[in-house]
Amino acid sequence: MCGSDQAIVIKGSKCSSGVVPEATENNPRPNLSSDAIINLDHGDPTMFESYWRKVGNACTVMFMGYQSLSYFANPKNLCWFLEPKLEEEIKKLHDVVGNATVEGYHIVVGTGSSQLIQAVLYALSDPLNEPNPISVVSAAPYYSSYPEVTDFVRSGLYKWAGDAHNFDKDGSYIEMVTSPNNPDGFIREPIVNRAQGMLVHDLAYYWPQYTPITGPADYDIMLFTVSKCTGHAGSRIGWALVKDINVARKMVKFIEINTIGVSKEAQQRAAKILEVISDSCSQTVRLPESDNFFEYGQHLLTERWKKLREIVRCNKLFTLPKFHPQHCNFTGDFAEAHPAFAWMRCKEDVDCEKLFRGHKILTRSGKRFGSDPKCVRISMVSRDEEFDLFVKRLSTVQGIANGN
Amino acid sequence: MCGSDQAIVIKGSKCSSGVVPEATENNPRPNLSSDAIINLDHGDPTMFESYWRKVGNACTVMFMGYQSLSYFANPKNLCWFLEPKLEEEIKKLHDVVGNATVEGYHIVVGTGSSQLIQAVLYALSDPLNEPNPISVVSAAPYYSSYPEVTDFVRSGLYKWAGDAHNFDKDGSYIEMVTSPNNPDGFIREPIVNRAQGMLVHDLAYYWPQYTPITGPADYDIMLFTVSKCTGHAGSRIGWALVKDINVARKMVKFIEINTIGVSKEAQQRAAKILEVISDSCSQTVRLPESDNFFEYGQHLLTERWKKLREIVRCNKLFTLPKFHPQHCNFTGDFAEAHPAFAWMRCKEDVDCEKLFRGHKILTRSGKRFGSDPKCVRISMVSRDEEFDLFVKRLSTVQGIANGN
Repeated sequence: MCGSDQAIVIKGSKCSSGVVPEATENNPRPNLSSDAIINLDHGDPTMFESYWRKVGNACTVMFMGYQSLSYFANPKNLCWFLEPKLEEEIKKLHDVVGNATVEGYHIVVGTGSSQLIQAVLYALSDPLNEPNPISVVSAAPYYSSYPEVTDFVRSGLYKWAGDAHNFDKDGSYIEMVTSPNNPDGFIREPIVNRAQGMLVHDLAYYWPQYTPITGPADYDIMLFTVSKCTGHAGSRIGWALVKDINVARKMVKFIEINTIGVSKEAQQRAAKILEVISDSCSQTVRLPESDNFFEYGQHLLTERWKKLREIVRCNKLFTLPKFHPQHCNFTGDFAEAHPAFAWMRCKEDVDCEKLFRGHKILTRSGKRFGSDPKCVRISMVSRDEEFDLFVKRLSTVQGIANGN
Repeated sequence: MCGSDQAIVIKGSKCSSGVVPEATENNPRPNLSSDAIINLDHGDPTMFESYWRKVGNACTVMFMGYQSLSYFANPKNLCWFLEPKLEEEIKKLHDVVGNATVEGYHIVVGTGSSQLIQAVLYALSDPLNEPNPISVVSAAPYYSSYPEVTDFVRSGLYKWAGDAHNFDKDGSYIEMVTSPNNPDGFIREPIVNRAQGMLVHDLAYYWPQYTPITGPADYDIMLFTVSKCTGHAGSRIGWALVKDINVARKMVKFIEINTIGVSKEAQQRAAKILEVISDSCSQTVRLPESDNFFEYGQHLLTERWKKLREIVRCNKLFTLPKFHPQHCNFTGDFAEAHPAFAWMRCKEDVDCEKLFRGHKILTRSGKRFGSDPKCVRISMVSRDEEFDLFVKRLSTVQGIANGN
């Protein structure tokens, strides 16, 4: 199994090994010991906590005991459980950022984008005219949850059909187009391109901190999530922009049966958070002590990617994707993408996830993404101390010839 | 179709016709016009709003922008997305009320009990050993959502098999035992009673405001929901008490795939609400201005049932279930049940839902519960003004001989 017996060592005194940071007000959890397990398997977006600490009370929301008892948020709306304030702030934020068209779209709120993905599959399936489950595909490396989310209850409506590159069945199908892609950060187009295809654009990472915004997306079905936009993964709020009213209606039906709507507390808090972000981007309503949220995030990620690329360059055992600078309409500058995940490929013929696990670094194997076990996905959005400990430890990872 | 040509009219001057209430501080929505549509189809528990207004700030919760970003609430817990404070308050409330044993149970939180029902079906199905979907039954009249929740994505793991009374298939099955029952309020036992049966006890209404608490339930799987316990349906929080760790583990897996956990804001607010209720029941920590929550609810429902029974007695067109007084361990008194729904049966051979719709009263047809179209389910937990307008209007409902 050993592809090479060449020892991979750190060379060059200029190569940084990363520093575990001191505790600060903005970063109150520096308790990682130097041999701690670092979990970068999930994309838990705790990196943004430091921003929200700076914002302080401007983002505080309060609930009295008598508020929001009813199931209904807006009985007159097609999406009767969508809080009007959240709808308003979603539209405003897309306008401010310029990453999606909202005019002419129906907004469907979901308990995170996982629920919205299932709602879309339910909405696009057509059991009256199609006796067999509709095929669901995505180009490898694809988001590791798609197969599981599609197949976990063995639905007769839809069925995972794997890598879009290999899809050759006749008839209708659903293609998930994740752009920027999870795990590798590249901008994507549909792969299958047949007449009976239906496209779902998962745009969870189409925000300025991760990638240049090259224009407003205007696809038929677009999915977004608060988790990746603002960092509030614990709230479980996502939204879909949907052109066709019948698709939107069926998605609402799915969420009605699945969870009878979406938590009002989470929606109202998300509305406030999106409002604060929109304000932070505006020249006229700039909050004291707060930067433009997206510029702050972009800056952090740029620094992290710089550190990571430097270690990888020195280590010589891995490769990382390369991104070409593009003009970002939001910042007005040319910039590279700085994705939420690093898609690392080992140059040796090893199981990369296992290799990292041996160094107490938990990552997600390329196999989970329909890809190569020589690849892993590594979260770039953890807390500072985890990221810094990761790059420090990465600098010591050696090839299999040295027993790893 | 006309079963009788006898005119049904209101008789007797002692029969009240109900009064539309004035606006008060506790009841700020008296805007129903006398000919408004009254929607009593859903069991939207807005009745409890008046209690929560009285409680005031004691139940207020606040979220700062930097709180609860992570997906994880307690990574060491089997249910890694369950807020520790909610777990604690669930246990405390069951202890205070005496309606369920918690010792030796695993707690799984869900996005309302709808999600928990699906999680249970997923957890109890065994696709490796059972090639066909497991049958799911419940005795009619059964909760109208069970068939839809079971079958909406045409799962290959489980399949709705209808009224438990008619179930005669060999092999394993899941029986939903709803007690007190939705729609009719009766305490229930399993019906099928075969060796290969698995029971799920849906105890959403086993709280003192609805029914006497005769002892702590200790079934294998018990489902509860904040919506019906406290009135906070908009939060979408339910919980399961589960004896078998492997069942609990699979339920957690379902919720992980379906929605990657449960909103932290909703959980933390629910924890506060349960705490306030437990305190309101305690002699030592009684809040100013607040009654014991369950006694308050029981009082309101007792009054409503009294009004309704009086109108029904005068009207003579309908019958209501009768409940025998039982000793309630919580209040220490003998009391009848006062369910969250009135299960009304029309004595004439009419479609009762249609009859009420003609009077702008929206109810849920008995057909939806696997039962008789002469029956309807009517919410008893709406706001005062809706309930009062309903009983007023009910007094004018006449039989089909008069053209309804």
